[in-house]
Amino acid sequence: MTTFRSIEWRDNSLRLLDQRKLPAETVYLELRDPQMVAEAIRAMVVRGAPAIGTAAAYGLALAALHSVAQRTTDMVREVEQAAELLRASRPTAVNLFWAIQRVMDKVYASLSLRPDALREVILREAHAIAEEDVRANKQIGLNAQPLIPNPAKILHHCNTGSLATVDYGTALGIIRIAHESGKQVHAYLDETRPRLQGAKLSAWELNQLGIPHTVIVDGASGLVMRKIGIDLCVVGADRIAANGDTANKIGTYNLAIVAKAHGVPFYVAAPTSTIDMSICSGDDIPIEERGAEEITHVGSERVVPQGSPVLNYAFDVTPADLITAIITEKGIAYPPFTESLARLMNTDQ
Amino acid sequence: MTTFRSIEWRDNSLRLLDQRKLPAETVYLELRDPQMVAEAIRAMVVRGAPAIGTAAAYGLALAALHSVAQRTTDMVREVEQAAELLRASRPTAVNLFWAIQRVMDKVYASLSLRPDALREVILREAHAIAEEDVRANKQIGLNAQPLIPNPAKILHHCNTGSLATVDYGTALGIIRIAHESGKQVHAYLDETRPRLQGAKLSAWELNQLGIPHTVIVDGASGLVMRKIGIDLCVVGADRIAANGDTANKIGTYNLAIVAKAHGVPFYVAAPTSTIDMSICSGDDIPIEERGAEEITHVGSERVVPQGSPVLNYAFDVTPADLITAIITEKGIAYPPFTESLARLMNTDQ
Repeated sequence: MTTFRSIEWRDNSLRLLDQRKLPAETVYLELRDPQMVAEAIRAMVVRGAPAIGTAAAYGLALAALHSVAQRTTDMVREVEQAAELLRASRPTAVNLFWAIQRVMDKVYASLSLRPDALREVILREAHAIAEEDVRANKQIGLNAQPLIPNPAKILHHCNTGSLATVDYGTALGIIRIAHESGKQVHAYLDETRPRLQGAKLSAWELNQLGIPHTVIVDGASGLVMRKIGIDLCVVGADRIAANGDTANKIGTYNLAIVAKAHGVPFYVAAPTSTIDMSICSGDDIPIEERGAEEITHVGSERVVPQGSPVLNYAFDVTPADLITAIITEKGIAYPPFTESLARLMNTDQ
Repeated sequence: MTTFRSIEWRDNSLRLLDQRKLPAETVYLELRDPQMVAEAIRAMVVRGAPAIGTAAAYGLALAALHSVAQRTTDMVREVEQAAELLRASRPTAVNLFWAIQRVMDKVYASLSLRPDALREVILREAHAIAEEDVRANKQIGLNAQPLIPNPAKILHHCNTGSLATVDYGTALGIIRIAHESGKQVHAYLDETRPRLQGAKLSAWELNQLGIPHTVIVDGASGLVMRKIGIDLCVVGADRIAANGDTANKIGTYNLAIVAKAHGVPFYVAAPTSTIDMSICSGDDIPIEERGAEEITHVGSERVVPQGSPVLNYAFDVTPADLITAIITEKGIAYPPFTESLARLMNTDQ
């Protein structure tokens, strides 16, 4: 366990580490209703596909907890409204929809219970999602180790660590477990514009863990591969289509192209809850566009002149043919992904 | 001519538009000695290979102007010292060395003159370099037009406009001339981390000229090529080796790889003063590393935590095999560049 928790249930409220304030300040927010949770997801107080899935599940628990409904059907209606609100907070990460659906399935299977008992069921399911995420992340890290040489120079994009999950992390968890198992690991961190999750969050986490790392601008990855040599790239995912196409933070696609041009293996690390078998290919993944101010301003400074438009896609899709393997808690999928992912999804762990 | 001049000789001093203050403020600095010019180049008050070449030439003129030497040999020694200082200001852009050498060649050919006359020779040569840069840029823009379709979506990196040259610009000059000749041009501008010259400077210039444009983060170029479609990329250069390998702002190499992966033509635009025939390949071009604070801080805000190292290469080298053509004032060079560039360099215009 790390010394901080990005997401925690405490005293009947959801406690989130406000990631917008890092690395300067470590501030926690206490959220008491699903509206606050939806807003925290939208505003990226909490981010990272697994973390927002878990936060949304707790958002449903908050809806049930604060409901004064006397009848189960009334409580269900309130929880359904909260689910609607939470689903609208961010469109790309599938874990959000997955976690909400998982809780709602439990709700619909518990309609014979009284409101108090239903409350308990929902909270228990949210806890289960959180605990399974920690377990899945550790297993992803362990499963990946045969792919990590020693020593290893690893290029990483965005943040996929404890902050992006309940604990441990996906891609960053792989780096952490490699380090903890005694491998000489050096992480090169794309700063990841526009929100700088690599510079602000991944560097902060690796600093806390004492893992050697270097921050670079996103445009420097090709030069770093040529001049310094990179053994592998590893990134997280916000949604993986049935054919392996992977939506992840903007800049991932460019990195995958650059890795391929240098013959550097490119790995995606994600729990199977990120895999959306209902979507055939990346063409069908909705890409969130976020506000212009993420590009036009850094801190309080305006860097793009008034009157100059910007285009702020928050995610891109990396086609499966640029991906060497997809590392999950159930095992590693290799191309062709349509077959290997289907096989994984049908495996009990 | 544009309504601003990045670089101008006025009242016996060198007047520079302080590019660090754009787009928020339009501030001019008056430089009166070569030390100030060297510092302005180092601190990137003035930037862009052609502009810093011209600024350095004026720096030598300032050395001569303020010299109190009674004997020509004493004045020459002072000018040589200024040349030494100016050469050390930035290592990658060859135009700096080219312009200094061109002035010094004139100096050594004028040792029979008296100090006053030598002063005039140096200033005249600096003026000639400035005027030729404007002419060369316009000619680059004209030469490029057969390569620019109508309408055209053009992706551009860094700043290569009037601010990076004496006037008009290289790659941005091509976009400008296409627009002025009635083509429907839309420029997509890489913001260009870490110093954001695309966001701050290129957007500012295109705004002033009324040319449609959109700012994107550097990591979004692949997605923009896929989703929106880009007809061509065009970038400037800080040094071009005899084989066509091109040093330019960090991120250019990644963009060239991404362009190739999408079958998008990738053009380099530069005056022939940027071509360094003494260097066989990009492996021999020195790559400037700049201070960590360009990455660790944006404005006054620290975005990389204390204790996290950064690597700040200011330039990268794009291998010739990723370059579709090199557009100069003397014409367009196509692969194999070793032959085509040699032919161009031996052409009188």
